[in-house]
Amino acid sequence: MTERPRVVVMGLDEDRWPEGARAVADVVDLEFATSREALAGALSGAEILFAWPGEDRGMLPAAWSRATRLRWIQTASDGVDWILFPELVESHVVLTNGRRVFDAAIAEYVLGLMLVFAKGWVPMLERQRRHEWRHRDTELLAGKRLLVAGVGPIGRAIGRAALALGMEVRGLGRTPRPGDDVFELVHGAAELPDAAGWADYVVDALPLTEGTRAMFDAAVFARMRPNARFVNVGRGATVDEEALVRALREGRIAGAALDVFEEEPLPAGSPLWDLPNVIVSPHISGDFAGWREAVVELFLANLARYLTGQPLENVVDKRLGYVVEPRLR
Amino acid sequence: MTERPRVVVMGLDEDRWPEGARAVADVVDLEFATSREALAGALSGAEILFAWPGEDRGMLPAAWSRATRLRWIQTASDGVDWILFPELVESHVVLTNGRRVFDAAIAEYVLGLMLVFAKGWVPMLERQRRHEWRHRDTELLAGKRLLVAGVGPIGRAIGRAALALGMEVRGLGRTPRPGDDVFELVHGAAELPDAAGWADYVVDALPLTEGTRAMFDAAVFARMRPNARFVNVGRGATVDEEALVRALREGRIAGAALDVFEEEPLPAGSPLWDLPNVIVSPHISGDFAGWREAVVELFLANLARYLTGQPLENVVDKRLGYVVEPRLR
Repeated sequence: MTERPRVVVMGLDEDRWPEGARAVADVVDLEFATSREALAGALSGAEILFAWPGEDRGMLPAAWSRATRLRWIQTASDGVDWILFPELVESHVVLTNGRRVFDAAIAEYVLGLMLVFAKGWVPMLERQRRHEWRHRDTELLAGKRLLVAGVGPIGRAIGRAALALGMEVRGLGRTPRPGDDVFELVHGAAELPDAAGWADYVVDALPLTEGTRAMFDAAVFARMRPNARFVNVGRGATVDEEALVRALREGRIAGAALDVFEEEPLPAGSPLWDLPNVIVSPHISGDFAGWREAVVELFLANLARYLTGQPLENVVDKRLGYVVEPRLR
Repeated sequence: MTERPRVVVMGLDEDRWPEGARAVADVVDLEFATSREALAGALSGAEILFAWPGEDRGMLPAAWSRATRLRWIQTASDGVDWILFPELVESHVVLTNGRRVFDAAIAEYVLGLMLVFAKGWVPMLERQRRHEWRHRDTELLAGKRLLVAGVGPIGRAIGRAALALGMEVRGLGRTPRPGDDVFELVHGAAELPDAAGWADYVVDALPLTEGTRAMFDAAVFARMRPNARFVNVGRGATVDEEALVRALREGRIAGAALDVFEEEPLPAGSPLWDLPNVIVSPHISGDFAGWREAVVELFLANLARYLTGQPLENVVDKRLGYVVEPRLR
């Protein structure tokens, strides 16, 4: 009898493992680790790591010397910036992510936030508290211009939802490319200031990589239209937050809805909490009820591939920091 | 030279008439009337009335005896309940409405309100005011069930927007009919309790007619699911508001977003202002910036048809109280 592979689940309490997925223990040894000590112990001899993002991002680097038999890491997230560190990038360990699990939820989240701005619902809810009936014309999204930075499955789902309401949709990727059924055209990263200046809504759905760090900076916000709203569901560090606060304070842009921040949880003293026309949410855009089950299901499907020697899905290019579309490889 | 027809514009100040539509005064005599006295004077000899909804719904009945030459009334609204009265219904005066002008705006409004509920944004905005970062899983609209009561162009636009997000969509019309490209099936009005009991979101986009008055009553709310949200962008009087308040207070339904009310403006003492999970808006769902211009454009197109003897568009069945779809005539 061959040895059963050991799977370490990092950052998830055993009691949150879905009931329907208990049977996996019949084919692999499952160990749960939510502390540095537990992880170091569990990683010895483990082939597979199923990694859930938590607050201690030093957990895996601290235990890395024990990961001598590790061959594959599956993340429970779409973004992988939180788990990447030089030794992992250099290693032969294969990294796969939660691609596609969060697309629909994030697209709904972004569409809704654009509608919250267009319909003026934040000030309207304040008037409701005062029992104040005041008619205001609303804005249409139909006919408005949306730029989506990040043209992977999440960006495409956002674009598709916006298209259905009659918006004009452009994308921004690493390199320029012709339009397709979602984006009328795709700008390259270098064109961000121009591309952002064209739009009524600018959505950041970027992964955090060396290329995207602080990509939304003062120069970009300066080029945006004064009526434009900025929505960030990508990663906080893709934005120069100080520059964003200045742009909002000076009225260079009309509003922002932020689900991700340079520092999370957003510090209680951040000016973003109280700026008018800013909506702050606690990194929940993708987290629909059922996302844990969906991510476990994705892991189990990949595990079946692993155990039968088939190629894994959602393999991340560790140097780029995201999954490269097959057609662009 | 033949006499130029006189057009009376009721309920709109002359200075709100769009600049681009001034030239209409070259072909018709345009008179503006915003008081009962002015209307009575202007209606004598007028062939055409362009009627904008205002607070005094007795204006037209009070001046009706002067309307001896009136042949056509165009409303600036989609709903016509506010202008109909027995003598008008009995008369030969043709009534046309603002059909299609408001479809996109109302569909966006409803979609956004469903997302506000699904994503928990009202309590989230309250937590933002307290600088409180608290993770909550959100709900998806994808896969949820939507019942749209009212299957004219507005109801269809709502259904289409919801379909694009992956909702399951049913309609409710006067009589049952098979499904089509928007509604998987259309219930008849008599089936409302069952139909509402199926849905996660119930949207009232009904015109107010004798058949729809207080259609959403205690019996309907009693059949709705406890997780269900009710959205009203139709007419306030299609709902038994007291029964709705009771259903909300007793937790029989999870929430309501109301843009229309039995009495408008909603009285400051109404319990609806303060009920948790209730969103109150001041009858604005269709009123996008530009709706006045769009309605005037629609009127001018119909006026051109009138002056050249072609059939008018958007002719209301005055007994039913709405435009009957050609295929159902």
